Amino acid sequence: MNVAIMGYGVVGSGVAEVLKKNHDSILKKSMQSSLELKYILDIRDFPGDENEALIIRDFNKILEDDSVRIVVETMGGLHPAFEFVSACLSAGKSVVSSNKELVAAKGDVLLQIAEEKNVNFLFEASVGGGIPILRPLSQCLAANEIYALYGILNGTTNFILTKMINDGLDFDTVLRMAQENGYAEKDPTADIEGHDACRKICILSSLIYGKHVYPDWVHTEGISHIDLADVDYAKCWGGVIKLIAKAKELDNGMISALVSPAFVPADSQLANVNDVFNAILVRGDATGDVVFYGRGAGKLPTASAIVADIIDCCQHTRQKKLFGWKPSTENIVVDYLDQPTSLYIRAEAAQPDEAIAAARATFGSITVLTRKDQPTNEIAFVTPEDTERALRTKLETLHSVKPLSVLRIADC
Amino acid sequence: MNVAIMGYGVVGSGVAEVLKKNHDSILKKSMQSSLELKYILDIRDFPGDENEALIIRDFNKILEDDSVRIVVETMGGLHPAFEFVSACLSAGKSVVSSNKELVAAKGDVLLQIAEEKNVNFLFEASVGGGIPILRPLSQCLAANEIYALYGILNGTTNFILTKMINDGLDFDTVLRMAQENGYAEKDPTADIEGHDACRKICILSSLIYGKHVYPDWVHTEGISHIDLADVDYAKCWGGVIKLIAKAKELDNGMISALVSPAFVPADSQLANVNDVFNAILVRGDATGDVVFYGRGAGKLPTASAIVADIIDCCQHTRQKKLFGWKPSTENIVVDYLDQPTSLYIRAEAAQPDEAIAAARATFGSITVLTRKDQPTNEIAFVTPEDTERALRTKLETLHSVKPLSVLRIADC
Repeated sequence: MNVAIMGYGVVGSGVAEVLKKNHDSILKKSMQSSLELKYILDIRDFPGDENEALIIRDFNKILEDDSVRIVVETMGGLHPAFEFVSACLSAGKSVVSSNKELVAAKGDVLLQIAEEKNVNFLFEASVGGGIPILRPLSQCLAANEIYALYGILNGTTNFILTKMINDGLDFDTVLRMAQENGYAEKDPTADIEGHDACRKICILSSLIYGKHVYPDWVHTEGISHIDLADVDYAKCWGGVIKLIAKAKELDNGMISALVSPAFVPADSQLANVNDVFNAILVRGDATGDVVFYGRGAGKLPTASAIVADIIDCCQHTRQKKLFGWKPSTENIVVDYLDQPTSLYIRAEAAQPDEAIAAARATFGSITVLTRKDQPTNEIAFVTPEDTERALRTKLETLHSVKPLSVLRIADC
Repeated sequence: MNVAIMGYGVVGSGVAEVLKKNHDSILKKSMQSSLELKYILDIRDFPGDENEALIIRDFNKILEDDSVRIVVETMGGLHPAFEFVSACLSAGKSVVSSNKELVAAKGDVLLQIAEEKNVNFLFEASVGGGIPILRPLSQCLAANEIYALYGILNGTTNFILTKMINDGLDFDTVLRMAQENGYAEKDPTADIEGHDACRKICILSSLIYGKHVYPDWVHTEGISHIDLADVDYAKCWGGVIKLIAKAKELDNGMISALVSPAFVPADSQLANVNDVFNAILVRGDATGDVVFYGRGAGKLPTASAIVADIIDCCQHTRQKKLFGWKPSTENIVVDYLDQPTSLYIRAEAAQPDEAIAAARATFGSITVLTRKDQPTNEIAFVTPEDTERALRTKLETLHSVKPLSVLRIADC
């Protein structure tokens, strides 16, 4: 059986490396007589690369070669990844992808083609890198009703927040460090503004709830506005700030989904997930809380997830896999403003004592927070729980304070 | 399709409960037209129980009923569980078991019968309760060479150690508390002496390395000798004491496996696994460290793992699953005394300064530990790494100290 890789970047070359390095054990597990990498599609040149002879530029070579039964898509981006993957599936080839943008936007369509053609479309690597999460979610937790799922799904932002928390460095400084270390891209927008985490929570919630949740339905906030003052107040409150992606099914069958920085209590299993690590907490009715932890990105962890999918395709060549979800014709995600939460509020107030009294009169029983070197005109507190809309409306009535930062309190 | 349960204790009744409560979603996932619980085998009476009508005492009723395609074994113990499970598999029924004693002792034999009969023998619930671990290990990590695996696999001992660490209560007090809370059995030997964790590490290492590792090959120590003084010294060292089950493949293909209390550094992902929770850290060559965390025991978590296996049996009625291991004809576990480790040593010494000097002269660069209210005739230190045999031999030469406690330093 032959394999092709589309996209010879970090992850694609990692797949080639793992396939080669662990060839014998992979072949044995795949239950095939042979398993060879035949083509690598890329528009770039790789002079001197050990796989140079396999590099091709014409996608049709892969499409028309019947010996290629499994195609790995590690190109990233929506186009032409979508067209190429669709064509491969339609031609009866199984496809393994690490492309969260593609799966989050087009997973329903691609799964449907895979089902019609009785082939596999697998994408374990698209969420949580090397952490096995999609299979455990779909198989091992099959007996549970899943109440909610909370994830630290982006390594770059988690690295930045960890450095801010542990070393007291500000956002811009750490972002530069992360870029120098290769933990952040030159254009870090997709990471720091939460889009990457949003795509992943869309994939997870689509899988859990069986209906496609599209990224533009999910309210998404990043971490670029987080100040060291917020980090200190979180410590005073008894927790840390993490970028949390959350999905929850409501009683009416609608989905609550949100990506935003939030206060996480220190005793949460997500509070100690540091640096570039990811973790996913799944709350099931029978199983209780289950957490999956590991490297959410990186060449070899991601490649290992892809190769595991390749092995699965080998073991089930003509059998469609059991996870899949349906397209959603109308928005099934509720407005986050209607959901219950507590809010952390940091504000400027010329007369702090009176401002706190006013906040207490407005919100009820607030928790006042303090920090070292707190400016005399700064207050911070955590509100009781209410809908976010009600809390924000109340905040607007507090004319004596000027909000500087508003963050949610996570219930994980 | 009909299901039978053998053993209507805590876990067996949990299975009946989950099957009933989530019947519709389970039926849908199982891809069967029906999925009904037909028999419950138990020697006891359950007057007034909602499933009273299903209770039978004659195993042959299950064996001879061809409509029963899946049998759940939640009896525990080796006999007659082994005979019943063998008979069911031989009769072409799939079996799902939560019985770690059975799988650890007879997994190879039962897997072989299942293979011959082309049916499933699944036992996700036997390790880690509701934590999906066996499938991720065998499938999702298929692309990795697994260097090592470290587990907190027993909830009772982890609860006891957590209370000792956090509340400063001694072992006997906490054991009594645990027994009152139902976290420990009346006869707690299997838990506190490490036998339960040993069975689970045997199952995990057999699965990873493909060769049966039998429990009596694995050196096993429990926690009943742990003193609060040791807990305090661990804190001084920068960590906590946990009962760690460990398996590792050596370069020569032999297995290093061990169950013992050990110092775990505070920044290990296993250090914050508290109370009755379990966690398994898997160290792969490509994926790096991956951790699975959740409730390792309890009625519903364990039942949910069993029901997930039932669903898997429904989806793959005649297809044998892909995990299995071979019998081991000779001991493949190396002597733990030949393995490298550091040791924590607490000892009585009439002349502590001289004893520390002697220890330094004997072991080289030791780390001296102190604790609050340390008796004037007590010393504690951590040795550099060497084989355990060499370290213990050196300790015997230290005539001026009387060892009170010796614990290993975990490398997880």
